[in-house]
Amino acid sequence: MEAETTRRPEKEAPDKNIKDDTTEFNESGYGLTDAEILDIEDALHSGYDDALVHAISDLGAADAAELLAKVTDEDRIKLIQDHAPAFNPEVFTEMDSGLCRDSLSALSADKVAAIISELDSDDAITIIQNLEPAFQHEIIHKLSVNLRVALQEGLSFPEESAGRLMQREFVAIPQFWTVGKTIDYLRAATNDLPEEFFDVFVITPSYHVVGEIPLNRLIRSMRSVKLEHLVLEDTHPIPATMDQEHVAQLFRRENLTSAPVIDEEERLIGVITIDDVVDVIDEEAQEDILKLGGVGKGDLYHAVLLTTSSRFRWLFINLLTAILASFVIGLFGATIEQVVALAILMPIVASMGGNAGTQALTVAVRALAMRELSRSNAMRIIWKETIVGTLNGTAFATIMGIIAALWFGNSILGAVIASAMVINLIFAGLFGAGIPIILHRMGSDPAISSTVLLTTVTDVVGFLSFLGLAAIFLV
Amino acid sequence: MEAETTRRPEKEAPDKNIKDDTTEFNESGYGLTDAEILDIEDALHSGYDDALVHAISDLGAADAAELLAKVTDEDRIKLIQDHAPAFNPEVFTEMDSGLCRDSLSALSADKVAAIISELDSDDAITIIQNLEPAFQHEIIHKLSVNLRVALQEGLSFPEESAGRLMQREFVAIPQFWTVGKTIDYLRAATNDLPEEFFDVFVITPSYHVVGEIPLNRLIRSMRSVKLEHLVLEDTHPIPATMDQEHVAQLFRRENLTSAPVIDEEERLIGVITIDDVVDVIDEEAQEDILKLGGVGKGDLYHAVLLTTSSRFRWLFINLLTAILASFVIGLFGATIEQVVALAILMPIVASMGGNAGTQALTVAVRALAMRELSRSNAMRIIWKETIVGTLNGTAFATIMGIIAALWFGNSILGAVIASAMVINLIFAGLFGAGIPIILHRMGSDPAISSTVLLTTVTDVVGFLSFLGLAAIFLV
Repeated sequence: MEAETTRRPEKEAPDKNIKDDTTEFNESGYGLTDAEILDIEDALHSGYDDALVHAISDLGAADAAELLAKVTDEDRIKLIQDHAPAFNPEVFTEMDSGLCRDSLSALSADKVAAIISELDSDDAITIIQNLEPAFQHEIIHKLSVNLRVALQEGLSFPEESAGRLMQREFVAIPQFWTVGKTIDYLRAATNDLPEEFFDVFVITPSYHVVGEIPLNRLIRSMRSVKLEHLVLEDTHPIPATMDQEHVAQLFRRENLTSAPVIDEEERLIGVITIDDVVDVIDEEAQEDILKLGGVGKGDLYHAVLLTTSSRFRWLFINLLTAILASFVIGLFGATIEQVVALAILMPIVASMGGNAGTQALTVAVRALAMRELSRSNAMRIIWKETIVGTLNGTAFATIMGIIAALWFGNSILGAVIASAMVINLIFAGLFGAGIPIILHRMGSDPAISSTVLLTTVTDVVGFLSFLGLAAIFLV
Repeated sequence: MEAETTRRPEKEAPDKNIKDDTTEFNESGYGLTDAEILDIEDALHSGYDDALVHAISDLGAADAAELLAKVTDEDRIKLIQDHAPAFNPEVFTEMDSGLCRDSLSALSADKVAAIISELDSDDAITIIQNLEPAFQHEIIHKLSVNLRVALQEGLSFPEESAGRLMQREFVAIPQFWTVGKTIDYLRAATNDLPEEFFDVFVITPSYHVVGEIPLNRLIRSMRSVKLEHLVLEDTHPIPATMDQEHVAQLFRRENLTSAPVIDEEERLIGVITIDDVVDVIDEEAQEDILKLGGVGKGDLYHAVLLTTSSRFRWLFINLLTAILASFVIGLFGATIEQVVALAILMPIVASMGGNAGTQALTVAVRALAMRELSRSNAMRIIWKETIVGTLNGTAFATIMGIIAALWFGNSILGAVIASAMVINLIFAGLFGAGIPIILHRMGSDPAISSTVLLTTVTDVVGFLSFLGLAAIFLV
């Protein structure tokens, strides 16, 4: 405490801003504290509307989104229905998309139209595209003509495409202009310009992109310089129909900050900036983790019944896998009756196979998503995983063979579990890498079904090899 | 083919660029094709050095990084040792960090120093920080004094901190300047400026940040306007010691494109831009997926033995879990001997618990990482997961109870497996959400150890409830 005071002797206005931010960070993090959330909930429940509206209007969009995500469903609906105008309208672009849909669906079309009117066209599309078509229609007809046309055009592009992601406001300058003329234009046209931009696009009279000029390049050039001498021709024009996942990969790969979006005739129709892409990168990475775990997007915010039913499907497929494995065990019922130690040990073989396979699978799924794995190195990766499986299989076979032999005083049992372990870990490596690669090549998403298929393999191979060898050598 | 030709009647120079990019995208994607990789490998093996150098120098940094990631280890070392100067030096910033370390370690300190000299200071730090300390030292002493000092200062910040991420070149302007004076300064100082910048920082004489001005705001203002009227005071100064994960969260949360980095005295010392942060976001998301799967960063590129040994540890911990579960089964050896159906069915109970628990766990781990889960909603999430577990537990209990009763013609067995299933899925929900939340509160990384702990719970509870109930009601 003391050290802090000495470090900051004068509390000038501009410094205050900095100080607050740093202190915030030194504690549990930034954003809303749990205490602030509780305060707002209290104000809501006790009907202190003035205090509530005041507290809400003070929140930035991200903080308000955090608040709405963390309160109960009833409180959220109450907050939005009674106090929608107090919220920063951008709060809805910061929220989980499912939660945003549910929240806005509780409002009247008039209220939603009022919120959307205050947003940029790309944010407006992000929000409206998640609503029910009938509700969308109703809202759109309450908007100004300009925004209505912009939204209708935006919605005509495929979902999750560059066309939906792009901002329709951009700065395009003819290639024969000079730096001076461009700056004068920017100063005069200040109302027609997008709120934020990083580059100006240089175009031909037919709106084809010649190249782009980052603002810092423009601002440090003399007024007499012609734009054509500044243009970076290394642009990456993005067709409006490109999938947003590809857009994100392109930005990441080429370290872009913005890119022009073009229509079928290759004419400039919009711009995608990196801040839009960060959300996509985040979303895609999140989707993969959730898919691997067998859950859908937005699960955290779904109501109990929706969560239950959406998870049921994945669990049901897993049940079929488990029953299949049980059938395999059932084939050896007589053997187990004679040597009950088999029943005790068999889950170890299956579980080690499952875990080793999951390691290989995770690496492969991730590498496929990041485009680090393709035809040219696929065979090498599968081969590597098979060798790794063999090596770790041998190591664990030795460990588990000795444990089993000592535990049950039966060295043949030790040899049987050791052999089964090696066999199952080899299969785990081979299929752990192979299944996602094959699914990917067949055009399926490897994150969704790889895990179930792999578990089937490691369970069946594990039980079959262990109990099969036992039936031959032990009984 | 025909449609394409008609659509683009004249092949003007500026349009060509666009055309190439779009065609590339319409095929399997962008970047290197497998055929191009094979061509380069062929040239390498047959010693066509001219063709090789030509092909390599044509590659952008990202493409070259893809090439080096996909060729064999021997080819990679050969390419780098014999042809390092032909590569775009930024290739090393685009590579997986482990692979980059291995590749550079194969070169002499002189060659590495030559590569590093061509990079920006932040890229140079990214690369050099991964090398062995002794090798780092050797390289640093071959660099120019300026770069050496910059690197030594950068390396004095903690690993994965804002200080390592930041760029040391930035534009800082006194607050009493006008727009015109600033533009004149930028035009004159063109050599001292960073290669790219999006904002200028407005500072006090003591280098404290007053605020920032995005370039587009500067360029559209009249020359006579004073900077203090343009300054956005809503800056987010980042202490140089802040963890890069927090930096990424701040950028994402506040939709920043750049932020000033400050030292202990709160003086401006650098700037972090969004393109640096995109890599961090990517990396962090990737780390979580890999940790949940029980593998480390860079696993894809590790040699077989390193991969084997790094995965061994995780598998070993899982072996202990599996042995613990076996002990539980061992307690009921006599029961299993009497009713072999128990051995056949018991993996189903454990496996369903494991899968249901993993669903809850994945959602919780992800929500913790995204800061969507904290004290204020933790109890509600745990409670929700427990209810979801109860509901799905009841559903699967009914299904599996009927199957078991029919399969073995024993309705008590059906009732036993049904009860065990409900019990295990309730525990799965409770612990699936609870374990990551508790680990997080204890300051551990929930992505690393949650899975093992959860499997222990669902295995032990599954076997114990199923076999225990069977011992009471069936024998």
